Amino acid sequence: MKAMSLIAAACVLAFAAPVQAADKPEDLIKARQAGYQFMAWNMGRIKANTEPGAQFNKEEVIKAANAIQAIANSGMGQLYARGTETGKGYAETRAKPEAFMAEHQAKLGKVATDFNREANAMAAVAAGGDAAAVKAQFAKLGGTCKACHDDFRKK
Amino acid sequence: MKAMSLIAAACVLAFAAPVQAADKPEDLIKARQAGYQFMAWNMGRIKANTEPGAQFNKEEVIKAANAIQAIANSGMGQLYARGTETGKGYAETRAKPEAFMAEHQAKLGKVATDFNREANAMAAVAAGGDAAAVKAQFAKLGGTCKACHDDFRKK
Repeated sequence: MKAMSLIAAACVLAFAAPVQAADKPEDLIKARQAGYQFMAWNMGRIKANTEPGAQFNKEEVIKAANAIQAIANSGMGQLYARGTETGKGYAETRAKPEAFMAEHQAKLGKVATDFNREANAMAAVAAGGDAAAVKAQFAKLGGTCKACHDDFRKK
Repeated sequence: MKAMSLIAAACVLAFAAPVQAADKPEDLIKARQAGYQFMAWNMGRIKANTEPGAQFNKEEVIKAANAIQAIANSGMGQLYARGTETGKGYAETRAKPEAFMAEHQAKLGKVATDFNREANAMAAVAAGGDAAAVKAQFAKLGGTCKACHDDFRKK
């Protein structure tokens, strides 16, 4: 769930985005791992609120969805600059080589666009406060995470 | 900059917040470290846009400020549940024992409130697109980070 959806957006931008001169590859990898990890925590919070028997906490879900949305839209593509194809942030990157290959950028662009669209929808649905709708949108969002993991993240 | 401001909000809520049964202390510590790390990356992006000679990129600053705002408002207090006073996420927690002590909660609550207010203001100022105003608000926001670090984060 947590990691590869944004590699898509990432890679689309990776070779064009300006990178701060001081950014070391390990810092960029660490930042992207942190972003995915924090989104994963928030995905877990939404999931916990929609499971059978759970008491749905609207405010909790809104906070989690807003965090995912803002991170998804933050421009993580910059974190996939040249030099970050391999290396260690908190741990070795799990990005597959394909994520950095020109011939895979169209597919990557699609999964990235899908993810961002569903993350924005997740925040909108959360604001509505309907538990069933949140559960349905959570599944759609999770599907876009998985789509990227399947093709662009190592197991 | 990155870490302790939210310990404030954190600790205010720490002993009341419901925690998912499956949440292990190391996962909670990892999630809070990830949140701070991702905010730190975004603080760096804003800073880079306001330094002498930098070309101010309004959209870049908005994305960064929105991410900081959403993470600040995400309810990280839950990540400071009992059992997370010590321990390792990505690394040993740098939270000081004071962050978990009843007699320091009022002070912690103030620095947390200050941080959240300035993070919200940062997003609003970023949306305005005025480089000088962004620079000034960035300094105010950074000051609230430091206030918490000084008292509640180990060096």
